Amino acid sequence: MDVKKRYLVVMVILAMVFGSILTYVGVEVFNIGQASNNDEEQSLISTDEDKQKVLEEQNEFNGFAKVVQAYNIIEKNYFEDVEQSKLVEGAIQGMLDTLEDPHSVYMNKEMVEQFNQSIESSFEGIGAEVSMEDGQVTIVAPIKGSPAEDAGLRPKDKILEVDGESLEGLDLNTAVSKIRGEKGTEVELTILRAGSSDPVTVPVVRDEIPVETIYPEVKTVDGKKTGIIQITSFSQNTADEFNEALADLEEQGIEGLIIDVRGNPGGLFTSVEKILENFIPEDQPYVMIQEKNGEKIRYYSGTKEKKEYPIAVLTNQGSASASEILAAAMKEAGYPVIGQTTYGKGTVQKTIQMGDGSNIKITIYRWLTPDGKWINEKGVKPTMEVEQPEFFYTSPVEVEEPFEYNMNDEKIANVQKMLEGIGYDPGRTDGYFSKQTEEAVQAFQQENDLNATGVINEETGQKLQQKVIDAVRNQKNDKQLQEALNELY
Amino acid sequence: MDVKKRYLVVMVILAMVFGSILTYVGVEVFNIGQASNNDEEQSLISTDEDKQKVLEEQNEFNGFAKVVQAYNIIEKNYFEDVEQSKLVEGAIQGMLDTLEDPHSVYMNKEMVEQFNQSIESSFEGIGAEVSMEDGQVTIVAPIKGSPAEDAGLRPKDKILEVDGESLEGLDLNTAVSKIRGEKGTEVELTILRAGSSDPVTVPVVRDEIPVETIYPEVKTVDGKKTGIIQITSFSQNTADEFNEALADLEEQGIEGLIIDVRGNPGGLFTSVEKILENFIPEDQPYVMIQEKNGEKIRYYSGTKEKKEYPIAVLTNQGSASASEILAAAMKEAGYPVIGQTTYGKGTVQKTIQMGDGSNIKITIYRWLTPDGKWINEKGVKPTMEVEQPEFFYTSPVEVEEPFEYNMNDEKIANVQKMLEGIGYDPGRTDGYFSKQTEEAVQAFQQENDLNATGVINEETGQKLQQKVIDAVRNQKNDKQLQEALNELY
Repeated sequence: MDVKKRYLVVMVILAMVFGSILTYVGVEVFNIGQASNNDEEQSLISTDEDKQKVLEEQNEFNGFAKVVQAYNIIEKNYFEDVEQSKLVEGAIQGMLDTLEDPHSVYMNKEMVEQFNQSIESSFEGIGAEVSMEDGQVTIVAPIKGSPAEDAGLRPKDKILEVDGESLEGLDLNTAVSKIRGEKGTEVELTILRAGSSDPVTVPVVRDEIPVETIYPEVKTVDGKKTGIIQITSFSQNTADEFNEALADLEEQGIEGLIIDVRGNPGGLFTSVEKILENFIPEDQPYVMIQEKNGEKIRYYSGTKEKKEYPIAVLTNQGSASASEILAAAMKEAGYPVIGQTTYGKGTVQKTIQMGDGSNIKITIYRWLTPDGKWINEKGVKPTMEVEQPEFFYTSPVEVEEPFEYNMNDEKIANVQKMLEGIGYDPGRTDGYFSKQTEEAVQAFQQENDLNATGVINEETGQKLQQKVIDAVRNQKNDKQLQEALNELY
Repeated sequence: MDVKKRYLVVMVILAMVFGSILTYVGVEVFNIGQASNNDEEQSLISTDEDKQKVLEEQNEFNGFAKVVQAYNIIEKNYFEDVEQSKLVEGAIQGMLDTLEDPHSVYMNKEMVEQFNQSIESSFEGIGAEVSMEDGQVTIVAPIKGSPAEDAGLRPKDKILEVDGESLEGLDLNTAVSKIRGEKGTEVELTILRAGSSDPVTVPVVRDEIPVETIYPEVKTVDGKKTGIIQITSFSQNTADEFNEALADLEEQGIEGLIIDVRGNPGGLFTSVEKILENFIPEDQPYVMIQEKNGEKIRYYSGTKEKKEYPIAVLTNQGSASASEILAAAMKEAGYPVIGQTTYGKGTVQKTIQMGDGSNIKITIYRWLTPDGKWINEKGVKPTMEVEQPEFFYTSPVEVEEPFEYNMNDEKIANVQKMLEGIGYDPGRTDGYFSKQTEEAVQAFQQENDLNATGVINEETGQKLQQKVIDAVRNQKNDKQLQEALNELY
């Protein structure tokens, strides 16, 4: 249910940044010293003698012989051929599984490569934000200085073909995967420009595209200049970019600041550290690390004074890990936190390389809030709980056979919530297609130049979905943001 | 969906045999030589020298050192204490997981003990079939010669308390677990007998109760005496009991036979072998075993002739493993198989003991049908496909708040299917409580001495469920059985 509910929101986010968020969404990582492993682990695999030593050491824990015994049983008896490397990976994964810690994981060589891509601050492609509009891949905006901009691509351009291959019927992810590719390679896009009926073919040379994790904005509310900085994840350049953006906003004379970490799955510890140093004065820690032996290490900033302007933080269930360090530190330093309770990841991982390209990411510490609370599996509660309107959580419309009066289906409930969200009253939202729902559909159809049949066919469904996506993107409907703006002044 | 659909059927089965089926239901096993392991495996763990040898052998596959390395990393770094024996078990389970074979599993000592109980032909308790009727644990029948019979318990007795503790509000499984217990221990049951208003307390001394896996019956249809043998699983005594029951039926002069393996999850290979020898003549194999190297071993019976009377087999999706060997052999020998496609388990497992009470059950062979087909993940298709009426697959009624006109809920769909199944037309079965559904509810209430409100409250729901359970138990509604009887003559 939850997964479904969040689907449309995710889709909208996907549509906004050209593929880059794709990799981030699944990653909830937060590493200390991720790049540098300590010498001790490295030495484990550095020489053959060490390997031998390790093998000998295992006699000390003779229970481990059982694993070898099991390996032999499987290899000798199983009715199909077994691959040794797969069994070895399985054994490692199996040991980690017993910890019942979703953040302690084994990654083989291929997974490591994917993961590294995901935490790098760039990807290779043409550099344009795209979204799916009326079933067509549509450019939202080319990124500044990107190949897409250089090639003259403009907002609202529809991408019909990639290298002569039609994108019709493909979902956004699949379409994006065809457009992306290695730096230096060329891709031919067939484009239909708004107001034109003849498609044109444009060659674009792919390049390395920096991934933005900071989206600053200035909004004037009741005559007050307010800075809003959205942080989409904590990657290598995030803190520097945040600090730059903040300096720029301050230069513009903002009278208040909103930091938005909604949907931010976390990232590097050092990155959130440098951001917090702006706001948490030196007399209180901004986070504590608890070691295995129970010892607590307090982290302090070198900042003398709080900012003079008011600051609020926006969170939701998708704010995890480093986002929660930020939210907890800000909350306990007295700043308002608005939105929903965060994800609840209160641990710190280290990545240890195995020497063959694979590695083990393992939980090594708990982190505690400045007041010493462990938020694991609980999350950070906002100071002001605000949910988004229900239509934010609707699923994409699927119309296999048209929906009409007296039908009853869960998918109709979804459509009813959408209608309600954009101002048409369907009478009920439980999936029963009542007379009043029919009237709401007719009203929607009339106002959108569709045949006012009261029946939801594919065309009406697509239009409805487009309207809902527009409404989700409209900041006026963002109740959490609106409440934060109210709260600031 | 499937799980839900099957729930009520399972509940009914549960209600029929006092707890014993509980353990069988989850077990899909089928072993060759389960009790005897070959010497080679045993020697692996027999002496310390052997252990040492095994450890040395692992240098030959140096990839395994990685498992040891991972073990050390976890032990040294993880933020909580780890248990060595758990990691070892995790590693073994992890290796087996990579096989992607649900039937190759590791069982630790505790699991082995549970499993052994489940394949033994007895359990310890009082020996009565019970069911849940109108929210009360009710005796269906005491098993012949059981402590329950000796203590004078009768069908329809309600069990109110166990050792002074009320059973009110408990589900059947929990209630049964309180009544069961070790052989020789005493339990005091507080019983309410039909027609009496004063409960009585009866002491019962628990004993070992044989588990019946064979349920023979004679039915006269169109003047023809027909034997029906239901096999609920293939355990140690099953073949002997089957053969006894068959001899008895033949003595009674049956003119046709139905073998019912619906819901039978399988069991021991030797058990199905001995049953098939009655029916498959010696000129064709009744099963083939395919070894790892591809070699096929054909199994033949010593039987000269087919039986003179017609025979049919009943199957459904719950017929697995040994049941499928039976169904496939019978089908390919020309007997009709009626019902639904079987589960689809075409492999044979062996259990190898690890020497410390734990063991590994591992798939060692495929079995093939006499014609050489591998039915794994496909199942055995019946010669005549017959589904049970839809109300067989309804779920237990849950009424948190009463259901009434114009409500819409998946649970109402369930109730509508129940009403339809026992002859009241609710107009629709999609969960929308229409006027016609209301009329059907009123009709049901009138005929069952309930207030004809047209609203489904707890009382109406319970009554409806009882009626449905009665209907499921009524052989006249068993479409598969009825078709098999038609098919025989």
